[in-house]
Amino acid sequence: MVYITRKERFNAAHKLWVSEWSDEKNEEVFGKCANANWHGHNYDLFVTVKGKPDPVTGFIVDVKKLSKIIKREVTDQLDHRNLNLDVEFIPKGLQPTTENLVVLIWKQLEPYIDGCKLHCIKLYETENIYAEYFGEED
Amino acid sequence: MVYITRKERFNAAHKLWVSEWSDEKNEEVFGKCANANWHGHNYDLFVTVKGKPDPVTGFIVDVKKLSKIIKREVTDQLDHRNLNLDVEFIPKGLQPTTENLVVLIWKQLEPYIDGCKLHCIKLYETENIYAEYFGEED
Amino acid sequence: MVYITRKERFNAAHKLWVSEWSDEKNEEVFGKCANANWHGHNYDLFVTVKGKPDPVTGFIVDVKKLSKIIKREVTDQLDHRNLNLDVEFIPKGLQPTTENLVVLIWKQLEPYIDGCKLHCIKLYETENIYAEYFGEED
Amino acid sequence: MVYITRKERFNAAHKLWVSEWSDEKNEEVFGKCANANWHGHNYDLFVTVKGKPDPVTGFIVDVKKLSKIIKREVTDQLDHRNLNLDVEFIPKGLQPTTENLVVLIWKQLEPYIDGCKLHCIKLYETENIYAEYFGEED
Amino acid sequence: MVYITRKERFNAAHKLWVSEWSDEKNEEVFGKCANANWHGHNYDLFVTVKGKPDPVTGFIVDVKKLSKIIKREVTDQLDHRNLNLDVEFIPKGLQPTTENLVVLIWKQLEPYIDGCKLHCIKLYETENIYAEYFGEED
Amino acid sequence: MVYITRKERFNAAHKLWVSEWSDEKNEEVFGKCANANWHGHNYDLFVTVKGKPDPVTGFIVDVKKLSKIIKREVTDQLDHRNLNLDVEFIPKGLQPTTENLVVLIWKQLEPYIDGCKLHCIKLYETENIYAEYFGEED
Repeated sequence: MVYITRKERFNAAHKLWVSEWSDEKNEEVFGKCANANWHGHNYDLFVTVKGKPDPVTGFIVDVKKLSKIIKREVTDQLDHRNLNLDVEFIPKGLQPTTENLVVLIWKQLEPYIDGCKLHCIKLYETENIYAEYFGEED
Repeated sequence: MVYITRKERFNAAHKLWVSEWSDEKNEEVFGKCANANWHGHNYDLFVTVKGKPDPVTGFIVDVKKLSKIIKREVTDQLDHRNLNLDVEFIPKGLQPTTENLVVLIWKQLEPYIDGCKLHCIKLYETENIYAEYFGEED
Repeated sequence: MVYITRKERFNAAHKLWVSEWSDEKNEEVFGKCANANWHGHNYDLFVTVKGKPDPVTGFIVDVKKLSKIIKREVTDQLDHRNLNLDVEFIPKGLQPTTENLVVLIWKQLEPYIDGCKLHCIKLYETENIYAEYFGEED
Repeated sequence: MVYITRKERFNAAHKLWVSEWSDEKNEEVFGKCANANWHGHNYDLFVTVKGKPDPVTGFIVDVKKLSKIIKREVTDQLDHRNLNLDVEFIPKGLQPTTENLVVLIWKQLEPYIDGCKLHCIKLYETENIYAEYFGEED
Repeated sequence: MVYITRKERFNAAHKLWVSEWSDEKNEEVFGKCANANWHGHNYDLFVTVKGKPDPVTGFIVDVKKLSKIIKREVTDQLDHRNLNLDVEFIPKGLQPTTENLVVLIWKQLEPYIDGCKLHCIKLYETENIYAEYFGEED
Repeated sequence: MVYITRKERFNAAHKLWVSEWSDEKNEEVFGKCANANWHGHNYDLFVTVKGKPDPVTGFIVDVKKLSKIIKREVTDQLDHRNLNLDVEFIPKGLQPTTENLVVLIWKQLEPYIDGCKLHCIKLYETENIYAEYFGEED
């Protein structure tokens, strides 16, 4: 069993904001991330799949094809977008935190991973913060 | 003459958009950067000053003080903000491109650099694009 | 179950030195790391916790609060210090190797992790060497 | 149980090419990687071992010795070489993909890891692609 | 006057080899870089242009167009190629050192830089070696 | 005229401390950097030379030889040392700030640069601070 990881990137705007809360409570909980006019990040996304290398090609997966799937299903929908407003696969009202994004990206990608298994979604929001999801239910 | 550089960071939202233009022209010129609902970046800012090291302290400048000035005059005003809407020192209607930002940041910082000379403002918008300004008039 | 990681930094001096050994044996075992007058490193610390994202905030943990805990309990005590001499939570005589440090940092942090579980302490000593501890007893 | 990782580097040429296939099929499957006259990479190799830190030295392993073993058994044989032609421990005809390389490097190193256990071979081919092998049979 | 830089990448094979010299002399002068069956690198290319930001667009140059020119004139011809054998703009017999490559890339790009001036070609061969060319004749 | 740069590394301990000053004044001026028992850094050193590539070898300088000179004259004397106590070419009492170090390293290297010209010494103390010296007298 070997694991292979592909890195992709996207740049997006977002804010953390609970519409049922007052401005004060939003700022108290989310700090600068609650800025009304948004802020944004350069996100680095790492998608890891696992499987057995094919004896002829030496591939677990054709990484170029994997890259195309990630672009089509994930990063083309997130890149240069507003994560609160513009993205169909992010439910309205759900906070676009890194923690929530890795789960949503897993669900978005998993049906298209073929001939190997999705193992991990890792997402850097800044150089100091990243989240990981391994498909664990609990 | 020795040069010393301090790196700071900020995360911000922006878009490139000329309000006198049609949506089509904006998209034609600015592409994805014209997304109506904004996008964003993790910006890396490098401020370089030059001078002679003090014979006793070995400092051109107290880097901790320089860092405070950069934060007060620049990054505290840009971090977790919208560069088109929220920042006093960015003229409304001026495109918040990396090229324009380095000149504005120079003007913002230069009056507060004391005992040495501001040499360069360098700003990374992504790992693939950065701008530099050396105070050259032409 | 989602994992979130916060990176912090500290700069410290140390040496590897067994006081019961001769100078020759210390140099034989520890090489340049036994230099009597110390050497030092820029350490990069990664703290990973795991849990379920809160349905309202999208947080496993408030990363700003986690950062404050790491600073108070760990990096404020290590930063610009001598790891052999200055740090209360490092037992005197225990070698301040990266391997020992990750275990000590785990013990230092674990009581303060609340509402989620500490998963991993990862510490870079140089770009070429890092240690990890997952709380495994054996 | 603590894990420690050592990074090494090598620069090598290779191509992906199945000699039983036509040129067209090779290009269709491997794309630019099938270029007849080779291409190459700067590879970053991470070797992780696990064990208990020695109570006196604080070492799981003497990282300098581990580094020498990795050089002797792995990187000295790969560095500035052609992975299809020049390396004894890569079977002729096996594609030198990152997936296959991590398994071969594991087999090459494992007999020489003494006093601790080999845990992971991780190999970056580019900043966007890396493979990992944990010795799992299936 | 503002400077803007675009980073591109390519992966290539090469060797350093003077055909008029004996094998021994080639190995003496070029060491491992003379390996008969080639070796290779992940190259990072930085192209810097200078000019005045356009008052309406805020652009010195449309970086997307600059990127297309770099790809068409430079990196598409170098990527996944053999620098000694496959590239029309590298004269046969000229050593494909980083020093020579930056001059050749400058000559290749310069005629296509329009509305601003080419300022610098910077090329990383490894994380430890890079060359720069500013178009200086002597 | 082409420029080529070689990166080397060293890890060292130091403190900033003026012995004529009181403890209070040292702490006021140098903050945490005045810690009596030292602290330390992983330093990254970039040495840039300029010249014309040799028409036969394509070299401005044999980078392997340059690396040996840097090691012999600079990094072997700094690595795993105390910059205040252990290094002959750092005058006692001179603060080992990054600003002072780049000038001292220039003077240490310059006599040994042959067949090309030393252009720049650049030294990173942390990822956030670096100094540069170009040999300018004023």
